[in-house]
Amino acid sequence: MVTWLHWIDLAGVAVFAIAGTLMAYKKHMDGFGVVVLAAVTAVGGGTLRDMILDLPVFWVQDPSFFYVIIFAACITIIWLRTQNTFPLKYLFFADAIGLAFFNVMGCQKALVYGASPLVAIALGTMTGVFGGLIRDVICREIPLVLKGELYATACIAGGIVYILCQHFAINTMLCMLAGFSITLMIRLCAMKWHWSLPIFNPHDAVKDE
Amino acid sequence: MVTWLHWIDLAGVAVFAIAGTLMAYKKHMDGFGVVVLAAVTAVGGGTLRDMILDLPVFWVQDPSFFYVIIFAACITIIWLRTQNTFPLKYLFFADAIGLAFFNVMGCQKALVYGASPLVAIALGTMTGVFGGLIRDVICREIPLVLKGELYATACIAGGIVYILCQHFAINTMLCMLAGFSITLMIRLCAMKWHWSLPIFNPHDAVKDE
Amino acid sequence: MVTWLHWIDLAGVAVFAIAGTLMAYKKHMDGFGVVVLAAVTAVGGGTLRDMILDLPVFWVQDPSFFYVIIFAACITIIWLRTQNTFPLKYLFFADAIGLAFFNVMGCQKALVYGASPLVAIALGTMTGVFGGLIRDVICREIPLVLKGELYATACIAGGIVYILCQHFAINTMLCMLAGFSITLMIRLCAMKWHWSLPIFNPHDAVKDE
Repeated sequence: MVTWLHWIDLAGVAVFAIAGTLMAYKKHMDGFGVVVLAAVTAVGGGTLRDMILDLPVFWVQDPSFFYVIIFAACITIIWLRTQNTFPLKYLFFADAIGLAFFNVMGCQKALVYGASPLVAIALGTMTGVFGGLIRDVICREIPLVLKGELYATACIAGGIVYILCQHFAINTMLCMLAGFSITLMIRLCAMKWHWSLPIFNPHDAVKDE
Repeated sequence: MVTWLHWIDLAGVAVFAIAGTLMAYKKHMDGFGVVVLAAVTAVGGGTLRDMILDLPVFWVQDPSFFYVIIFAACITIIWLRTQNTFPLKYLFFADAIGLAFFNVMGCQKALVYGASPLVAIALGTMTGVFGGLIRDVICREIPLVLKGELYATACIAGGIVYILCQHFAINTMLCMLAGFSITLMIRLCAMKWHWSLPIFNPHDAVKDE
Repeated sequence: MVTWLHWIDLAGVAVFAIAGTLMAYKKHMDGFGVVVLAAVTAVGGGTLRDMILDLPVFWVQDPSFFYVIIFAACITIIWLRTQNTFPLKYLFFADAIGLAFFNVMGCQKALVYGASPLVAIALGTMTGVFGGLIRDVICREIPLVLKGELYATACIAGGIVYILCQHFAINTMLCMLAGFSITLMIRLCAMKWHWSLPIFNPHDAVKDE
């Protein structure tokens, strides 16, 4: 079980490292700055989660995460150098998969350490959103969470599904798969068809008093 | 005493959640992104304070903070939908109250856990400033701490007053009230009359060499 | 040994406090906002390092760091008020020295607490980069790590040299001096002669699909 969760964690880290490398390419970063941005994107969410839960940060005792980040960054660099166009849609796709991975991992870890369901959903959303958020803030891009298209909403929906599955005593692996799929599906559909869930009247003009 | 501090904490969280929702409205965020921004603004400062003091983060074991955030965000959303103008002055007002609340709470908690007065003032200022700061950074607004008008200065002055009151063995509740009032008053006056405390000669032109 | 490391830490904090004050001057901050930005720049990297390593944050039990920050900020303010030009090159120079200091300190502390070499290099780089990064993010400047000129690369190279020296059982003080010098030299040379290490083909136009 622990080994299996470790592999999931490594996969999430690899996917976010790819998203970080794609953004570094877009920003023309040089040298190891690319690897640093990949690492920040990949470990940012999980680091925040572990610091808030007061657990040892997952990558401090285990260098395998950094081997995965360096490997994922190198593969992406080589692939990008043989291409001539910047694949913006791949960046969004990698970001969506990483979001779904870390959302479910954050929920699961918070529940294991005794958080209540509402807190677990909040921690899952933070874990999923934070890595991409600091990547965008560092790179002075508009954070995806601001661009709408149900970014945070996908996390919260996926978290609720995961908690419900756990509540009905379904196998943890199936719960995680359900939460992961819901998060990813909502996010991908929202990107494709520009779904949004308007909270405020769209015709409300913003008039600064 | 503990119960009473808990209510103060809840009030500070509610006020900052309102400030976060107002900013989300200004930025036309959709779906649960609004609640996420409200939550980040509301718990950001206290989370940083607890992580630095190496205490359990205040909201992890206690879901009531998230009920308060969701409730405050919903009330603000409903209120905004019935209005036609964006109340920028309410955003600044809510931000000032939250700043004063968290500044004093940060000072108090740091002192209880054995920090020296200077460190307590620094931690109080961080607690007060951080939630609004990450809200502004995420939303790509100019952080209020940069806009001048004695933002950080109000926190430091309030912290000094709180520490002095404690030093003369005044009742903690009165100390907190004094620190809170000083922070809020300086900040509100500075906003109203555009007070500032120039550190550098205003006629110093910035000439990049 | 402990005393000696303490002095090194104080020196790094002072240098980054100067860099923070210089940036506050450039942004025309008023009141204690200047001191707050100096403090954030100076303690940001080390705070992140200690929170990730799950150690007590270095400045919480020891107010001397804040005396140093206030002293360094005051000296810089007085010096700037007697000048008529903004010394942008001094900002970069102070930033480079702080980067080298904190990079080596982060590596050293991570190794002492049992991290593997790869993790130590990553933590050293984070410690060095983080203070300046949040200073630039708060001030809405382009982060230096994005501007290229081997910012992160200097840290990683310095970290590798430090780890290698340790591996050959050289005296810790000499190891730190070697890591510090390499980081500083690469960064200063890269700034002076605009060195960069292109990772992506420079003629790759970014075509958003």
